[in-house]
Amino acid sequence: MRVLIDGVPGQGLDPLDRGLQYGDGLFETVAWRGGAPRLAEFHLERLASGCDRLGLPRPGERALLAEMAEAAGAAEATVKVIVTRGSGPRGYRPPSVPSPRRIVAGFGSPALPHGPWHARLCRMRLGRNTALAGLKHLNRLEQVLARAEWDDPGIHEGLMLDDLGRVVCGTQSNLFMAAGGRLVTPRVDECGVAGVMRRAVLAWARACGLDTAEAHVTLEDLRAADEVFVTSALVGARLLASIDGSPLAGGVLHEEFTAWLEAR
Amino acid sequence: MRVLIDGVPGQGLDPLDRGLQYGDGLFETVAWRGGAPRLAEFHLERLASGCDRLGLPRPGERALLAEMAEAAGAAEATVKVIVTRGSGPRGYRPPSVPSPRRIVAGFGSPALPHGPWHARLCRMRLGRNTALAGLKHLNRLEQVLARAEWDDPGIHEGLMLDDLGRVVCGTQSNLFMAAGGRLVTPRVDECGVAGVMRRAVLAWARACGLDTAEAHVTLEDLRAADEVFVTSALVGARLLASIDGSPLAGGVLHEEFTAWLEAR
Repeated sequence: MRVLIDGVPGQGLDPLDRGLQYGDGLFETVAWRGGAPRLAEFHLERLASGCDRLGLPRPGERALLAEMAEAAGAAEATVKVIVTRGSGPRGYRPPSVPSPRRIVAGFGSPALPHGPWHARLCRMRLGRNTALAGLKHLNRLEQVLARAEWDDPGIHEGLMLDDLGRVVCGTQSNLFMAAGGRLVTPRVDECGVAGVMRRAVLAWARACGLDTAEAHVTLEDLRAADEVFVTSALVGARLLASIDGSPLAGGVLHEEFTAWLEAR
Repeated sequence: MRVLIDGVPGQGLDPLDRGLQYGDGLFETVAWRGGAPRLAEFHLERLASGCDRLGLPRPGERALLAEMAEAAGAAEATVKVIVTRGSGPRGYRPPSVPSPRRIVAGFGSPALPHGPWHARLCRMRLGRNTALAGLKHLNRLEQVLARAEWDDPGIHEGLMLDDLGRVVCGTQSNLFMAAGGRLVTPRVDECGVAGVMRRAVLAWARACGLDTAEAHVTLEDLRAADEVFVTSALVGARLLASIDGSPLAGGVLHEEFTAWLEAR
């Protein structure tokens, strides 16, 4: 595991960094495959768009990609990029001249369980805020506390509802369902993260001529669906086989997408 | 400015600390007055209760107070305490054996503007989540973006509404209004922070025999109130003289509380 801060390895972080103080920043978790970042354009575009929304200068892409390669240190790895608003005086007010900071860390490839995933429903709900929705920002206590709800290694993901009871996502994944001839994913304009693999699935489906929709989704919708699968940058797509022990239907769209992803 | 990490000064923070990675932690901002922490019991109790709610071991109070005194380094200072879930493997899941980390930083006393404060209404809303409400946790992007909305030094605070349009707090303060013979402060059980100075005002008011309430509050309520004031650990209580240029009524409760606070 190797960490670079603004390109320099082996140093500690200024404890006054606003990423720590307020979660004032963004991150990307990138699957490094065959010596290159998978879905690199989507990660870089989301990071740039997130910087715009938070009022942060965008990091330079070439320097960032070089740091990611150095942090990866192998052909197969997981690379996490954090961009914060950097250090500043005490108080919420952002410095008028921001000096953002990059933290790039390389990890081994995760040992992901094969086959379909089993999910549970989390008690922790997602608060809604359109100004932050979709962003992969550093305010992740909801996901942390949701993931703390279970220990059972046979449960691979926890589904999260918003305060209105709509299904939004997993703790670390987005969600798709095939129903009525359409491929539907929950909207992420009030809460949730606009995942890069979610974007890839939507792009793939449209290219295949599938009817797609971003919509409000309920648990009843999932239980009645022809197929449910979860997606993430690291995992790709996995069939969701059950929720709290109740089996779901199983289809082949997730396999077709996976074949396309692996052939790219 | 002096920072101690787990009691040791002058070192950097592990960039894998979960406080940075996810905002997985809590903080307190303490007014150091006459060589001692003001409202120390309230700060320590809120921190302990927050640790319980996040599933973190409570820090030892004696060690923490000693570190705060060392970080303060003067009779008058501002001391910020952060407690995080410490370092751990990548991923939201908290380590089964947590090793929390203390970051204690001393700053000079802020140069606070005297006299009444003028406020504006922020566009940024507060998302609601009962599981996180009241906590002084490290997920503070809403406050950061709200505070980024204005530069005018004549505006001292921004008022924040929840997504239902109810007034909850300022970006860095709680809110009180006197109306109908009662002292009312917005509820903080769906969003907002349960401030230590808010608790002190409520305790003082009850000891004075005032009728108090934690209630839902609207902008119309504030505009019709006999007196509106804001509170924070650093500031104490300040009359709120206007919102977006519209003057508010002015009373004396904030002065009576301030006299009590300063006489303690």
